[in-house]
Amino acid sequence: MTASSKGYKDAGVDLRAAEDALERISAAVTSTYTPNVLKGMGAFAGLFAMPEGYSQAVLVASTDGVGTKTVVATAMGRFRQIGRDLVNHCVNDILVQGAAPLFFLDYVASSKLEPAVVSEVVTGAAEACREAGMALLGGETAEMPGVYLPGQLDVAGTIIGVVERSALVDGKDVRPGDALLALSSGGLQTNGFSLARHLVGDGLHEVLLGDEHGRSVGEALMAEHVSFLPVVRPLLSAGLVGAMAHITGGGLPGNLPRSLPAGLGAVLRRGSWPEPAIFGHLARLGRLADAEAFEALNMGVGFVLVVAEEDVEEVRARAGVMNGEQPTLYRIGTVTEGAGVRLE
Amino acid sequence: MTASSKGYKDAGVDLRAAEDALERISAAVTSTYTPNVLKGMGAFAGLFAMPEGYSQAVLVASTDGVGTKTVVATAMGRFRQIGRDLVNHCVNDILVQGAAPLFFLDYVASSKLEPAVVSEVVTGAAEACREAGMALLGGETAEMPGVYLPGQLDVAGTIIGVVERSALVDGKDVRPGDALLALSSGGLQTNGFSLARHLVGDGLHEVLLGDEHGRSVGEALMAEHVSFLPVVRPLLSAGLVGAMAHITGGGLPGNLPRSLPAGLGAVLRRGSWPEPAIFGHLARLGRLADAEAFEALNMGVGFVLVVAEEDVEEVRARAGVMNGEQPTLYRIGTVTEGAGVRLE
Repeated sequence: MTASSKGYKDAGVDLRAAEDALERISAAVTSTYTPNVLKGMGAFAGLFAMPEGYSQAVLVASTDGVGTKTVVATAMGRFRQIGRDLVNHCVNDILVQGAAPLFFLDYVASSKLEPAVVSEVVTGAAEACREAGMALLGGETAEMPGVYLPGQLDVAGTIIGVVERSALVDGKDVRPGDALLALSSGGLQTNGFSLARHLVGDGLHEVLLGDEHGRSVGEALMAEHVSFLPVVRPLLSAGLVGAMAHITGGGLPGNLPRSLPAGLGAVLRRGSWPEPAIFGHLARLGRLADAEAFEALNMGVGFVLVVAEEDVEEVRARAGVMNGEQPTLYRIGTVTEGAGVRLE
Repeated sequence: MTASSKGYKDAGVDLRAAEDALERISAAVTSTYTPNVLKGMGAFAGLFAMPEGYSQAVLVASTDGVGTKTVVATAMGRFRQIGRDLVNHCVNDILVQGAAPLFFLDYVASSKLEPAVVSEVVTGAAEACREAGMALLGGETAEMPGVYLPGQLDVAGTIIGVVERSALVDGKDVRPGDALLALSSGGLQTNGFSLARHLVGDGLHEVLLGDEHGRSVGEALMAEHVSFLPVVRPLLSAGLVGAMAHITGGGLPGNLPRSLPAGLGAVLRRGSWPEPAIFGHLARLGRLADAEAFEALNMGVGFVLVVAEEDVEEVRARAGVMNGEQPTLYRIGTVTEGAGVRLE
């Protein structure tokens, strides 16, 4: 359990020095507890009462990390952000199947655990769990001398959600001619960081030219991997979504086809969605061909909704509010006969 | 997804070089699928039909790793073993609450992923999942240059199990005078490895004096973290178990009290269970006081059952077979008034 004294004892951290951090972690974790959590810290496992009212409940599960965004976070001192990113990434991965989050478990490991760092990561994860309405049910901290490079850490997590079997989003009703609507990623989310770090080198603190927020390159790289749950949830209830794709590693060509029935593909019109300045910066640094950039990076598209052409306006009207604003759904392309993603 | 080409693309591994390994991984993963798995590789998340027939189902979840047993495994070339250890550790953690395993997700990360290594880890995890009757539903492989030391890896995993609410084992009926029955660990399981590596140093390949199997120190350290599920399952159905403890980090004094009601403790009679030679070897190398050794290492006790004194013989008679043999249940001590674990 992340927040139990047990987890800390495992890790060999001096409990007195860690006491403050442990209290903050404990408060953050318990703040996420939903009524379904049966028992909190201290047990050997987390207990969660299965929600009732499902005719045929399907559990939807995913494990993921944030890649080497951890390295940029370490350089920028932004540990809370990677806790948020980790959770939001997983929320989006199960959202694609139509699932609502139930609970999350985190894993934080380093050669030597800094209680203040762990506390920040877990606090960020707990924030994002609360926003998604799910419990941070458990986790593990591991001190692994001889495995991690000094000062570095890894964070991974597992989400469990649920969906009524008849409400599973599986793309089976998607047809050629369906519209592709995109939600902005705002940045790299949590993929392409090893490439980005290689290209950026020492330039994390340079001003990012053309950035609408006037950020440094490092701050732009740390842009939140946002959760699209608030936007998509009302659309799911209304049955308006044929398929969804979360644009993670592999970019649009790697992820969009996974959401479509076999034999269907997509044509995308470049320029129909905003590409944050960080993508142009990385492409210039690496002299990346478009195909390379689109396979390594999301290029500004965080999430794609596949909807019937006649439903586009209703989808836009019913999309949920995100951070107090109605998000823009960019019409970026169309489903086509024939597999593959073509860029126009 | 561990076994999907997606997971591998994320990790940046050359797909051609990894093809063989990928096929082995894919076969291993699908071999674990139970009828409840709705969809296999390639999706954004794993789908698992919630089993029916529960009146009030409780999901029991745990995330854990194998600590720096990974370093010994790397030195000894025993990657399949840590896949098995990872799963068995988690199986035992939820078994303590009375839960049956449903599915597992794994996480394997390194500075550079060796497909043959990942394949071995996942094959081991899949073997142990099959033995526990659960599906290896998903996972993630992550290539993290700049985070891990060259040639090292981390493995973590998450288990989800289920138990009927009325069958939760929570220790509430445990009374002073109840018997403590131990199952042998056979070795360190997956805790105490950073200490053990520090003490053993270059001595992994030395013969372990007094070892009943004639193994080297390294082979004794790699002894399997066994699953106690087959032993305990029939006892749970019979309602014979008041509480259980899995002896992980923190040893007997750190774990046994967690399974007991507040205010109760235990007295243990040393010599009433076998202590494999590796424990004496480590204690001698580190000149460890008993208290230190018992807090860092399980000292031969892998799992403890707390049962009513009058049920001891029935528990022994009904315990399940493990590896074709009736396991010995060692009577190692008794529940006492007053908190804490006392060694006699």
